[in-house]
Amino acid sequence: MSQSNKAVTLASRPVGPVTEDNFKIEQVPYPQISDPKTEVIVRLLQCSVDPYMRGRMSEKKSYIPPFELNKPIQGYAIVQVVECDDEQNVKYKKGELISGILPFQEYTLINVNHAPLAGLYTPHKTLVNGELPLSYGLSALGMPGITAWIGLNHLCEPKKGENVLVTAAGGAVGSMVGQLAKIQGCYVVGVAGSDEKVNHIVQELKFDAGFNYKTTSYAQGIEKHLPNGVDVYFDNVGGDALDQALIHMNKFGRIALCGAISQYNDTTVALGPRLTWLMIGKAIKMQGFIVGFYPELWPVAADAMAGYLLSGELKIDETVYNGIENVPKAFIGLMAGENKGKMIVKVSEKN
Amino acid sequence: MSQSNKAVTLASRPVGPVTEDNFKIEQVPYPQISDPKTEVIVRLLQCSVDPYMRGRMSEKKSYIPPFELNKPIQGYAIVQVVECDDEQNVKYKKGELISGILPFQEYTLINVNHAPLAGLYTPHKTLVNGELPLSYGLSALGMPGITAWIGLNHLCEPKKGENVLVTAAGGAVGSMVGQLAKIQGCYVVGVAGSDEKVNHIVQELKFDAGFNYKTTSYAQGIEKHLPNGVDVYFDNVGGDALDQALIHMNKFGRIALCGAISQYNDTTVALGPRLTWLMIGKAIKMQGFIVGFYPELWPVAADAMAGYLLSGELKIDETVYNGIENVPKAFIGLMAGENKGKMIVKVSEKN
Repeated sequence: MSQSNKAVTLASRPVGPVTEDNFKIEQVPYPQISDPKTEVIVRLLQCSVDPYMRGRMSEKKSYIPPFELNKPIQGYAIVQVVECDDEQNVKYKKGELISGILPFQEYTLINVNHAPLAGLYTPHKTLVNGELPLSYGLSALGMPGITAWIGLNHLCEPKKGENVLVTAAGGAVGSMVGQLAKIQGCYVVGVAGSDEKVNHIVQELKFDAGFNYKTTSYAQGIEKHLPNGVDVYFDNVGGDALDQALIHMNKFGRIALCGAISQYNDTTVALGPRLTWLMIGKAIKMQGFIVGFYPELWPVAADAMAGYLLSGELKIDETVYNGIENVPKAFIGLMAGENKGKMIVKVSEKN
Repeated sequence: MSQSNKAVTLASRPVGPVTEDNFKIEQVPYPQISDPKTEVIVRLLQCSVDPYMRGRMSEKKSYIPPFELNKPIQGYAIVQVVECDDEQNVKYKKGELISGILPFQEYTLINVNHAPLAGLYTPHKTLVNGELPLSYGLSALGMPGITAWIGLNHLCEPKKGENVLVTAAGGAVGSMVGQLAKIQGCYVVGVAGSDEKVNHIVQELKFDAGFNYKTTSYAQGIEKHLPNGVDVYFDNVGGDALDQALIHMNKFGRIALCGAISQYNDTTVALGPRLTWLMIGKAIKMQGFIVGFYPELWPVAADAMAGYLLSGELKIDETVYNGIENVPKAFIGLMAGENKGKMIVKVSEKN
């Protein structure tokens, strides 16, 4: 078959900020099923660009292997089975929806015995039955939403009336963390990179307060909006923000380390003040985490998030690009903070 | 009464390392009981010098207030009631032993309603009945031992076969942490500041290995002795040691932040590499703690430690000075790492 199969490949590894030159849009072979019992072909419907992908563009060893040069990049995606021998296949049916980390190419062969990284799974039932928009499978009911829920509720256990600080509060994870903390009855302050985002999280997402770290220092912003200190800090950025949060933490404070976007483009070893002694006297817990390490909590978190979405307690922001060729633009925009909430690329419509 | 009552007072606040000039040995008034129902006079038997006291010598705000200039310094002590109206007093009897944070002076008035910092308590029953030496109330059955037990067992939960790293391993806390980890079936590597101390912890205390950080870098020492990485790191020193431990931690590693002796004399803000991103991918937990925050665990820990002492599983190292006037020498020696295990000053004999 000579059917078109466009892919986003890694043309070169970025040094510092990612540019369009680091990617290439090119044709890859259309896949062929050789064993109808175990193989199906899926079509890419929607894909997600996320900050953690910056790590995979480098050669640096990490918790998941780097992307390979001149091969399609990968990320969370929702795909639909388009070629499948429904009578012979041991697992899938034609038309079925699948989620997971998959290559960013229009058509992909999936072997039921060789699930890629982090496994493949059926999207939440509210997405399959159409109660909620399919794209929520990449936000509230996908990795970012589960990340927000596990990092906040499982690791930090916020109690009613506690003070919660969240950075990258206009982003996919941060915007949900703040709303989940409000649901827990906390006082929530969000930090974002523009006045527009700050207005949005306060006015639309009902955070108690927020500040723009580009015009207000972390120290000043925290002192102004959280004069009684921070009980829970959900860290998406690392660096100065984490230093200042540590300085302003209360006794028995909890910090979830979710991301360090301020550090991802650094080509040198950044230096920061040695502040861990502050953690001793205030008995602060700091816990790094990867959402994939808690598979047993995914269904729990997804059911909770679906409930909040259906009741209207949780609002989802999305920034959408259309067409697979716009993946590089979407990713570069994400790293520059141009997104409001989840950055998604819609590639094709569900059949 | 004109009875002598020598005290160790704070003559000046240290800038950098502590010197003898920072202390003064002087007479303070012998106390007077005015309400025999609530007051007793105690005599200092033994007192403990510990690294955390360096913090109280500075003006810097901390979890306990700074020592006052020209007033007696305070620390953990074992005292005995020498003046008490046994018929009227609501709590104490003459001859009774008491432990807690008390002023370093020969005779002190204790008011049962105004217990100083962290409270006063009766030493463990094995000390009162003489099964174990009284000085163990300042090590295994006092703050350092409880610290070792809570930091290791409660916060880090070491499992059999895991790799445990402990710094200041020749010190009061570190030497017990390593032995407790061996009791849990772990592989234990200790770091100390002299070959003599390293030999001691390996040969006498049965650590699996050790290295001298003054002649072997933390990176080299950890790579050599823990080629499979670190599962639990008990941090007594902070700084470079913590950086290198973080770099070598395994997935789901736990770090107990107990002390930062490498930083205590710093007059500038020390800078270190920003390594918290490493904690994300390996889901590392780092937890600061103060033993006083866990009062409910003290009796549990003390009973466990007494059991290990009586069975011979736990050995106690002590470095002993005699005479209250030697408190400054003992403290300065402690900060310079001249102690083997617990540094104690014996002031008078029990009646």
